[in-house]
Parts: sequence; C-alpha cells; structure tokens
Amino acid sequence: MTLFRGLSAFPLTPTDAEGHVDTEALARFLERIHRAGADSIGLLGSTGGYAYLTREQRKRAVQAAVECIGGKMPLVVGVGALRTDDAQSLAHDAKAAGADGLLLAPMSYVPLNDDEVFRHFVAVAEAGDLPLCIYNNPSTTRFTFSDALIARLSAVSNIVAVKMPLAADDDYAGELARLRQMTPDTFTIGYSGDWGAADALLAGCDTWYSVAAGLLAAPALALTRAAQSDDAVEAARLNGAFEPLWALFKRCGSFRVMFVIADLLGLAHVQPARPVLPLPEEASDDVRQALETLEIAERGA
Amino acid sequence: MTLFRGLSAFPLTPTDAEGHVDTEALARFLERIHRAGADSIGLLGSTGGYAYLTREQRKRAVQAAVECIGGKMPLVVGVGALRTDDAQSLAHDAKAAGADGLLLAPMSYVPLNDDEVFRHFVAVAEAGDLPLCIYNNPSTTRFTFSDALIARLSAVSNIVAVKMPLAADDDYAGELARLRQMTPDTFTIGYSGDWGAADALLAGCDTWYSVAAGLLAAPALALTRAAQSDDAVEAARLNGAFEPLWALFKRCGSFRVMFVIADLLGLAHVQPARPVLPLPEEASDDVRQALETLEIAERGA
Repeated sequence: MTLFRGLSAFPLTPTDAEGHVDTEALARFLERIHRAGADSIGLLGSTGGYAYLTREQRKRAVQAAVECIGGKMPLVVGVGALRTDDAQSLAHDAKAAGADGLLLAPMSYVPLNDDEVFRHFVAVAEAGDLPLCIYNNPSTTRFTFSDALIARLSAVSNIVAVKMPLAADDDYAGELARLRQMTPDTFTIGYSGDWGAADALLAGCDTWYSVAAGLLAAPALALTRAAQSDDAVEAARLNGAFEPLWALFKRCGSFRVMFVIADLLGLAHVQPARPVLPLPEEASDDVRQALETLEIAERGA
Repeated sequence: MTLFRGLSAFPLTPTDAEGHVDTEALARFLERIHRAGADSIGLLGSTGGYAYLTREQRKRAVQAAVECIGGKMPLVVGVGALRTDDAQSLAHDAKAAGADGLLLAPMSYVPLNDDEVFRHFVAVAEAGDLPLCIYNNPSTTRFTFSDALIARLSAVSNIVAVKMPLAADDDYAGELARLRQMTPDTFTIGYSGDWGAADALLAGCDTWYSVAAGLLAAPALALTRAAQSDDAVEAARLNGAFEPLWALFKRCGSFRVMFVIADLLGLAHVQPARPVLPLPEEASDDVRQALETLEIAERGA
C-alpha cells in the first residue's frame, strides 16, 4: 500500500474568512494532485490549516475530499487537536467519512512530556482505528520526539509511520539507520521540510510529505521518482529547479507562499486564517519567477 | 487602579473531564484569593487552562467569576485563541460578562511574525474595548516579543500592560529600565515565572502575575508587600519558604502541581485536561512538604 510511501501531497484547505471550506476549489487542488500521479494526499496537515478550523469545517473538508478522490488514491487526514478527546472525535469523523489513514501532531499549549504524548497517541490510534502516522513537527507543536519515543509508539497498534522534520546536520542516512533498527520492518519513515527531500529520498527514506506537491505535484513527483531510482544527477537537477521556491519557503514560510501559488495558477483566490497574513504584493513576483524556473526544468526533463 | 499592579492571582479553572466548569469549586478558589487581599484575579490564564476550553465553557467561567467577586476586586480574563476572530469573540464575551481587563497571549500554530502579532493585538484590543495586558509567554506560545514590538503595542489604544517571562540572566533592573524608556509612563510591566518574582519586584516591576497565588495568595501577598516596601530581607525569607514549591514547579510544571495543591487543601478534586496527565501519587508527598515549609514561614512572619 502507498498510504505512507512515496510522494504524499499536502494541499491547502481553501476557505473563506470564517473558515467555511470552498469544496469546489478543494476539488480542483485534489484533482490536480491525482492527475500528476502522486502516491497519496495529506489533507488537513499544517499546510491544510487544520489548526484553524472547527470540527464541522474539518468534517466538511474530509467529506468533500472523499467524494472527489475517494477510491482513486489514498487519503490521509490530519486529526491534531489540543485536547485528547477532540483529537479522538476528529479521528472518528475522518474514518466515518472514508479516510484511509490518519496523521497526528502533538499540538500543545502546556509543554507535554513523553508519557503524555504516548498516551495521547495511543488514545487517538485506538479511537481512529485506521493506520496512523506520527507527525513530528517541532516548529509548530514545540514537541520533539526522541528516537526512544518513536520506537515505543511504533509498537502500538495502528501506528505505522512517522513524518520527520529536517534531519540534524543533513544526516538522513544516519537517522534512518538508527530509527530502522528501533522500529518494525513495516514501519515507514518519511520527511517533511521540502528542501531536505532530495537528500532524504536519496538516503533511502520511504516518504516525502510535501507542501509544494499540494499544488506542484508533477515536478515533485519527478524529483521523487528520480531519487527513488537512485538517479542522483536528475534528482539534483530537479531539486535545483526548486531552489528559488525553497528559498521563498525559508524566507516567508511555506504556508504563506502556497496561497500565492494557488492564486498565480488561477486555482483559487484564498487567504490564510488571521492572524496569519497574506504575503505582500511584491512577493508575487518572486513566486512567479520561482514557478518559471520550475517550468523550464520540467520542459527539459 | 490595581488592575495590572501588585499581586495578580491566577487560579485553576476546575472542570470535569469534558471541560464543563465546576462553578462552586471556582467560587471557592476566588473567595480564597479575595480573602487574602490580592490585587486582582487573572481568570483563564495558562494556569486556568484557557487553551483547552470552548468559547461556551470560558463564558461560563467568566460569568461565574463575575457573580462571585465582581465589584469586589478587578477581574482580568485571558482571551487567547489561534484565530483572530475567535479571540475577538472571547474578548467581546468577557466584556459582556463584566470583566475589568483582558490578557492576550499570541497562541500560534504557524509561527507568527511581528506584523501578524501586532495586527492580531490591535484587532482584539479594539473588539474587547477593555484595558488589555500583553501576555509574553514564549514557553506556551512559541512567540517572543522584542522590546520594539512591546513599544509599538504600548502605543495602541487599550493596550496598557505587559506580562513578561523570567528575565534573561535575572537582569530585571536592566530590562525594566529598557522597557520603561520605550513605553508610556502609565504602561505597567509585570512578571510571571513565580521563582523570579522576588527579584523582579525588588527591581521595581509593577506586577507579579502569580500561579502560586491562585491557591496560596496569602504568602504570595506577604512576599509581594515585603518586596514592594523594599524589605529585601523579609522578601528573601518568604521566597526561601517558597523554594521547595518553586523546585517542584520547575521539575513538574506549575500547571500540574497546582492540581495537587487544590486537592491537598481540600478545595477541589480535579484534573488537568488530557493529554496533560495528573502527577503520580508519589508527588503528593513532595507537594505536602512544600506546603508545610510555607506554613511554618507564615507563622513566623
């Protein structure tokens, strides 16, 4: 199964200012990802703005996604919440709506300890009763998973994958070797942080959890397939074409940049949830140039 | 006015497992703070678990607090939320229920920049139309206010105070001098992080935003008054009596410890919202000993 393997594309969730989901725009995003041939969709991830939506809004997004691409490709749904019971309800909703897998980040306000995160994950994995991926994203959750905690969680029923942040010192091979030794053979290890993906895939990781692929799945898939087949030269060429975009992601935050891309591609004119602000007009030129660099590289492929 | 001056006591919000507020237990907490003579109450702060409660639950807590101590002492209400419109609604609710002031933390998921936080605060200060205190608490919000941003916000209508975290290198005098130069004379500067309070008060800060005072207002007030009257010897003696409690706060997190104190004092048998776990049974002995140390010091006063 490709649920937590290969290229997982994380689309924005297009909403109005109150968080009401524009299901038609969402369908355009999902169909674009499906046409490009990505391996799975990661709905309501950080890029999908899950933290800013109510339970009802999130349910609406999942139902619309299932209606659009259900059965055509695996659908993973983010079910993070500050309260354990809320995350359990979201997991239940996602399964009821027809999701194929869950993604769970340890959202926090009071800083959590390992035992608290462990029991939170066990409770949600049980309630959801679907394959679940651990979402290790310290920049948004403030919680960093130790290797030991990932190993402990990998033994829990339904917990089958982890989505890691950029590896320290770019040592993907070392981190993968360490984690593989501590987790079951079937447990998959993937990475987010798009600018580390080429290195992570060439080092043999299982999955690229990609922000860019939410709107640019075709070049992201080309990069993924090149790296998966150990073609380091082609992977480097494609990653080079992404560099201007990675620079923007680092400078402005990938979340804000993706709204500009949706606009430039004519797919949706939507904005992030306040307090997050749209990028200033001037940034559009930089994003347009980054997209052009990418297009030229695609034509050269 | 003492709204953002002197000792501000931050009680727990006692709830059941679903977040339903136990208004009788809350009244016991508030009456105890009022009897001790603290200068204000900080309802629904981090210690009040605001991040884990719904809008309706928070409204119920504010209404119960106003009913209990409204008019008897100033009531400040935390109105933080991930979305700007939600924080505005909470501010509106707090004012409608009869709160005297607001406390706003820049809760975040996507890391926020200075402009985003500035506009978030302006929007909420406008909607609430009550004196508002900036809640600078990087350990829970992941956002750190620069001096420049505090200065910029201190010029905004309704924004009249800041609640700072422990000062770097314990340099309260230096930080206060810096901030005082950049903010209006009427703008008050207070501190949270209970174990830094004696130093901060002796250095001349305006306010101690105190977790411990939520249940132990009497000794916290004695410490506050000693430091406010420049009695460094008595302040040190009382702070020494608090040391075992500060050690527990540092080790276990003050939020978790306060639930044990409420239980030991016979005021309420409640638990934090999951995923936060109650402290293990063994911790009760340490907390009991810390309370005894404090009692002996109070008798010696």
